[in-house]
Amino acid sequence: MEDTVEFIPGGGVTSPKGFRAGAAIARIKEQAEPRLDLGIIHSEVPCTAAAVFTANKVKAAPIILSQERLQGGWVAAVVVNSGCANACTGDEGLADAAEMAELAAKHIGAPPGEVLVASTGVIGQRLPMARVRDGINRVVLESDGGRDFARAIMTTDTMLKEVAVRAGDFIIGGVAKGSGMIHPNMATLLCFLTTDAAVGLDFLKSALRGAADASFNMVSIDGDTSTNDMLLIMANGLAGGRPIRGGGRGKLFQQVLHRVCIHLAKAIARDGEGATKLLEATVSGAASLADARLAARAIVGSPLVKTAVHGCDPNWGRMVAAAGRSGAALVLERVDLTINGISLLEGGRPLPFDREAVMRSLGGSDITIALNLNLGRASATAWGCDLSEGYVRINSHYMT
Amino acid sequence: MEDTVEFIPGGGVTSPKGFRAGAAIARIKEQAEPRLDLGIIHSEVPCTAAAVFTANKVKAAPIILSQERLQGGWVAAVVVNSGCANACTGDEGLADAAEMAELAAKHIGAPPGEVLVASTGVIGQRLPMARVRDGINRVVLESDGGRDFARAIMTTDTMLKEVAVRAGDFIIGGVAKGSGMIHPNMATLLCFLTTDAAVGLDFLKSALRGAADASFNMVSIDGDTSTNDMLLIMANGLAGGRPIRGGGRGKLFQQVLHRVCIHLAKAIARDGEGATKLLEATVSGAASLADARLAARAIVGSPLVKTAVHGCDPNWGRMVAAAGRSGAALVLERVDLTINGISLLEGGRPLPFDREAVMRSLGGSDITIALNLNLGRASATAWGCDLSEGYVRINSHYMT
Repeated sequence: MEDTVEFIPGGGVTSPKGFRAGAAIARIKEQAEPRLDLGIIHSEVPCTAAAVFTANKVKAAPIILSQERLQGGWVAAVVVNSGCANACTGDEGLADAAEMAELAAKHIGAPPGEVLVASTGVIGQRLPMARVRDGINRVVLESDGGRDFARAIMTTDTMLKEVAVRAGDFIIGGVAKGSGMIHPNMATLLCFLTTDAAVGLDFLKSALRGAADASFNMVSIDGDTSTNDMLLIMANGLAGGRPIRGGGRGKLFQQVLHRVCIHLAKAIARDGEGATKLLEATVSGAASLADARLAARAIVGSPLVKTAVHGCDPNWGRMVAAAGRSGAALVLERVDLTINGISLLEGGRPLPFDREAVMRSLGGSDITIALNLNLGRASATAWGCDLSEGYVRINSHYMT
Repeated sequence: MEDTVEFIPGGGVTSPKGFRAGAAIARIKEQAEPRLDLGIIHSEVPCTAAAVFTANKVKAAPIILSQERLQGGWVAAVVVNSGCANACTGDEGLADAAEMAELAAKHIGAPPGEVLVASTGVIGQRLPMARVRDGINRVVLESDGGRDFARAIMTTDTMLKEVAVRAGDFIIGGVAKGSGMIHPNMATLLCFLTTDAAVGLDFLKSALRGAADASFNMVSIDGDTSTNDMLLIMANGLAGGRPIRGGGRGKLFQQVLHRVCIHLAKAIARDGEGATKLLEATVSGAASLADARLAARAIVGSPLVKTAVHGCDPNWGRMVAAAGRSGAALVLERVDLTINGISLLEGGRPLPFDREAVMRSLGGSDITIALNLNLGRASATAWGCDLSEGYVRINSHYMT
C-alpha cells in the first residue's frame, strides 16, 4: 500500500477536491507593513468534521463558539484571523466571534451554523469588527487559494506550513501555524486539515485524536498552552466511495493522516520562535507508551537541554536529568543515550567521547537524541527546538 | 510572640550555638580564577536531622548516600562541593561520595556514618578525588565560617544567600544556592539549615516538609529539576530545653522555619540565571491550596510571562492563560487580575488601563502579580524571575 502514497509538491488545503480558500488584508493589528491576516476555507459540500481544542480552562471566544457548532455535525467552512486572539473579551467577544461566522457564511453562501471560527494573536483585546467585516467581504475563494490562507494565519511564524498527501483515490491537505506558546495539549497551534475522502464521523474523531497524540501533542516550544488552539479536519467525501469506518482503507487513511500531522508538527518545531535547530528525541525501551511520550517530551521541553543544544554544549547529562524528572519509569543503570548517533551513556555510565566531534555535530540544523530506557518495548518521538536569545527578544516585545 | 523574632544581621549557618563551618579552594572544576568550591558544616554535638531530596529518578551519588545515611538518625556534618555533580557516574561515583564523607569525617573527628555529602555542577563527570582529598584537608572550621561555606557552594549564583533568625532562646540559620535548573519538587537547590533548638525528629520532619512546600517548592526558574537537590536541617539542641514536638513552641519554630525558607527561596528566585527582576505571584480565592499553588507556580513558570515581564510588555493575557492551563479550577468570568496593584481584569473582562503606567511599573525590580479566582478561600504565593537573553547565554555554554 505504501507505494501509492505520495506528497503533492506545493500542495495544501485546496489540494483535495471541492475545497477553495482565500485571504484578505484586514489590518486587524496595526502594523507598519500590512499583511494577509484573515482567511476562509470553504468546501462546496458540507463536511463531516472533527476537532481537538485547547485544554486551557481559559478558552477564547472562537473556541467556545466552534466547540458548540461542531456538535451540529456538519461544517462547510472556517474563517480565521491572526493579530487578535479574541480571548478574555467577555460576552462582547462571543458576540464578535458569532458575527464573524455570520459574515463569512453570508459572504460564501453557507448556513451560519456550519461555519467555524478561529483566532490567534494578543489576548484581552476586542476584534476590530469594522475591519473584520470589510476584510471578510474582500476574501475571494479560489481552488488554489490555500497558499494565501496559509499566509493569513501566520503570526511570528517565519515559514509557511502546508502539506498535501495523495493516497490512491483521496487526498489529505493541511495548513498550520506555530510558533510560540507551543506545548503538548496542545500547541498554540492552529491547524486545518481537509480531505476529499468520505469518512464516518466516529472514525474521523478517533483517527484525528490518534494523529494529534503522535504529532502536535509531541511538540514543545516553550511549555505554554494557548487559549486558542484548534486542530480541525473537514472531510467532504467528494473523492467518492463508501465512508471509511475502519478496515484496510481506515488503516491507510490513518497512516496518511499521521504523516500529514507529523509533517506539520515538525515544521512547527523547526520554526519555533527564535529557533535555529530542530530537536528530535526518541525514547525507546519504555515500560509504556505514556512513559515514552512523557520522557521524550520532557527532553525536548527542557530549557537546559534547549540552551545547551543552542550553544553546541555537549551537556548530555541534562537530557538524562530531564527524562529522570518526567515521571516515566527509569532505572539509571539501564539507560543508554546517543546524540546524532554518538554514544554518550551506556547502562547509566558515561562513555569517553570525542568532545569536538559532538560539538561539531550539535552545530547542525537537525539534532537527534535517542534515549533507550531498556525497561520495555514502547517508544515515542517528540520534537522541539533550541532556546535562543531570539526567543527572548521576540517574546519580550510581543505587544509593544 | 511575634516581637521576639528578629533577623540577625550578617547571620548564617554558624549563627546558632555549636555550629562551625569552613571552605577551601579545591579546583574541582578548571577555572581561570579558582574560587572556594568545597565546604563543611559541623556541629560539635550530633544533630537530629531531616531532609528533602530531589524527586528526579536520576539521583546523583551524594543524594543516594545521604538518603541512606539519614536513616541512621544522627548527623554531625555535611561536606559539599560545587563544580561537579557526581551524577551519572556509576558505582565509582558512589564510592567517591562515600570516600568524600570518610575524608571529611576523619578531618573533623566525627563518625563517618554521621557525615552527609552534597554536590552540584556538571552531570556525568567523576569527581577529581585527589583534589577533593587535598581540599578537605585544608578546610578550617570556624565559628564564623558560614560566609566562606556560602561562597563555596555557589555555581552560577551572583549573590550570597544566607540568613539567620533568632526567636527567643533559639536561632535558625540557613544558606542556599540556586540558580538554574530550579523548579518545584525541588529546585537545584542546595540548602542547609542549622538550629540550636532541640527538636523531636518527627516534628522536625513535618516542619521541614511544610516549610519546603511553602517556599522552595514555590520557586520556578526554568522548569527543570536537578539530580542533586537537597534541603537539610540539623538541630543540635544546644539552646537547651526539652525537645520541641508541637504546641506553642512548635508553632513558633515552624513560623521561624517558614520565614527562613521563604527568605532563601526569594533570594534564589531573584538571583535566577540571567534574572533582572523578582516575580511574585499570589493566587487567592482558589478552591483548594493545591489549586492555588498550581496556578501561582504556572504563572511564575511560564516562559511567555517571564519574557513579557523582562521586556516590560503589559501582555497580562499570558498570566491568565498560564493559570488556565495549570490544572487549577478556574472560571474565567470570575477572575480578577492586578499587576503591581494596577487592575487589568475584573470578572474575566479586561479593564481599560494606562499602558504607559503599567510598562513603567514593569520596569521595576519587583513585580507582584495578584490573581483572584473568586472560587474559594485558599491562597498561595510563588516566586520566579524574568527570562532574559542572559539566561540563554549562561546555559548555552555551561560546560564549554
